[in-house]
Amino acid sequence: MKVLLVFAHPEPRSLNGALRDVAIRELEAQGHEVRISDLYADGWKSEVDRADFPSWPPEARFLPAGASKKAFATNTLTDDVKAEVDKLLWADTLILQFPLWWYAMPAILKGWVDRVYAYGFAYGVGEHSDKRWGDRFGEGTLAGKRAMLIVTTGGWEEHYSARGVNGPIDDLLFPINHGILYYPGYDVLPPFVVYRVDRFGEADFEPVAERLRERMRTLETTRPIPYRQQNGGDYHIPSMQLRPELGDPGAAGFALHEDRAGATAKSATPRSTLRDVA
Amino acid sequence: MKVLLVFAHPEPRSLNGALRDVAIRELEAQGHEVRISDLYADGWKSEVDRADFPSWPPEARFLPAGASKKAFATNTLTDDVKAEVDKLLWADTLILQFPLWWYAMPAILKGWVDRVYAYGFAYGVGEHSDKRWGDRFGEGTLAGKRAMLIVTTGGWEEHYSARGVNGPIDDLLFPINHGILYYPGYDVLPPFVVYRVDRFGEADFEPVAERLRERMRTLETTRPIPYRQQNGGDYHIPSMQLRPELGDPGAAGFALHEDRAGATAKSATPRSTLRDVA
Repeated sequence: MKVLLVFAHPEPRSLNGALRDVAIRELEAQGHEVRISDLYADGWKSEVDRADFPSWPPEARFLPAGASKKAFATNTLTDDVKAEVDKLLWADTLILQFPLWWYAMPAILKGWVDRVYAYGFAYGVGEHSDKRWGDRFGEGTLAGKRAMLIVTTGGWEEHYSARGVNGPIDDLLFPINHGILYYPGYDVLPPFVVYRVDRFGEADFEPVAERLRERMRTLETTRPIPYRQQNGGDYHIPSMQLRPELGDPGAAGFALHEDRAGATAKSATPRSTLRDVA
Repeated sequence: MKVLLVFAHPEPRSLNGALRDVAIRELEAQGHEVRISDLYADGWKSEVDRADFPSWPPEARFLPAGASKKAFATNTLTDDVKAEVDKLLWADTLILQFPLWWYAMPAILKGWVDRVYAYGFAYGVGEHSDKRWGDRFGEGTLAGKRAMLIVTTGGWEEHYSARGVNGPIDDLLFPINHGILYYPGYDVLPPFVVYRVDRFGEADFEPVAERLRERMRTLETTRPIPYRQQNGGDYHIPSMQLRPELGDPGAAGFALHEDRAGATAKSATPRSTLRDVA
């Protein structure tokens, strides 16, 4: 297996750095090829701007999506972006690793998404008709590949539980898991989350490291989150609303977009345990 | 009133640029003072890194939160960050304006949050005890001030509706409204969202501009989203879980953290219309 790990922490001697090394060692021990995009070490540029599109006329009004479309089509993306696109095409598994800052990715990783996810590559793919609304949400350039998050957070697990004040972790990560990873086609594995890392001691490390090793050993067999394919019949086109007869009666918001009944029928594994099946 | 508008679009001749100018003109016509942080024009640095903390020992392991705490306490934050902190203290209303890219803020704006929200200023404020879990979620340095989002998106309003494939817009914006604005104390107004901006024509502009002017005229009177105060008794401390008897029986996820019953009791205004009350 070929694994790309995108790493977004400024300090290699951090818990994130240590967990990254644990993941790499285990993947290599399993015989996988691993490549790393270490965004801070590489001096990654975070901002989408005109300098990303040298072929866009300097006097023209700058249209981010239009410029991206043109640059991807004419192979004039900047070299740093091209290199990441090539890595995404190379890898059959993508791991994004980051500390949760303000309930979202650090800016540098958001900037990796904003810049690498070019029009024609990650979005603007496929036909729009009364049958299909582009190749996205389960289809797309990266379909058939797997992706997962490795996330650390200072808050307690309870604070991110179903009734915790921060909001449920699965909902906080939905814009990434569904909106960034599932969108261009990835099968998205349950995230690996480490809580209370601000007071992490020596004794806390090994159990977490072993849990991570187990996730790395089972990357190929872990069941993805059962998101619904956009063009599979569950949504009205073009309103893209879930058909009224679908979804658990009690479900609302993001949870509607998982086909839990279908997933359970296939495996009889209740969803609450999916997250812990390594 | 003193209004700070933080603007995160790379092209002044964009729809975002035009809407920003509409907002500023209306605010000034109402006699308000307006200051702008134009992140692209100012060349804002997006990445939290060691260079942000010149007083952090060069050979020491870099701890982002620890370095932020020390720098805020000793007044050694970098000048660009200090200027933004001062603007936040000056303003009684904060507006964040941005295009929704990949269901979140552009990296440059996330980098403004990551860097300006210093430890001791926006978090790490107040006592932790069996009665209080810090001054946050409704309390904090910025309590008593108001904040709102102005957001543009290429997708259709239906795609962001309760059953839309993207997820509901209120849920997608919750990590910002609740996690970034309410956290340090802001009263958060319903967001101003413009959809389908990729095909926005001349004729589409004026109705949207007028809707925005009306929101600017009513900044002081619009009712905030009724988020629950963390330390007001609704949450168990320290698990920070909403007490089991609270929340609509049908509510789940982010929606639990709004006290809709309380808000309705106070005003008899159903929440679904709150968003449109300008």
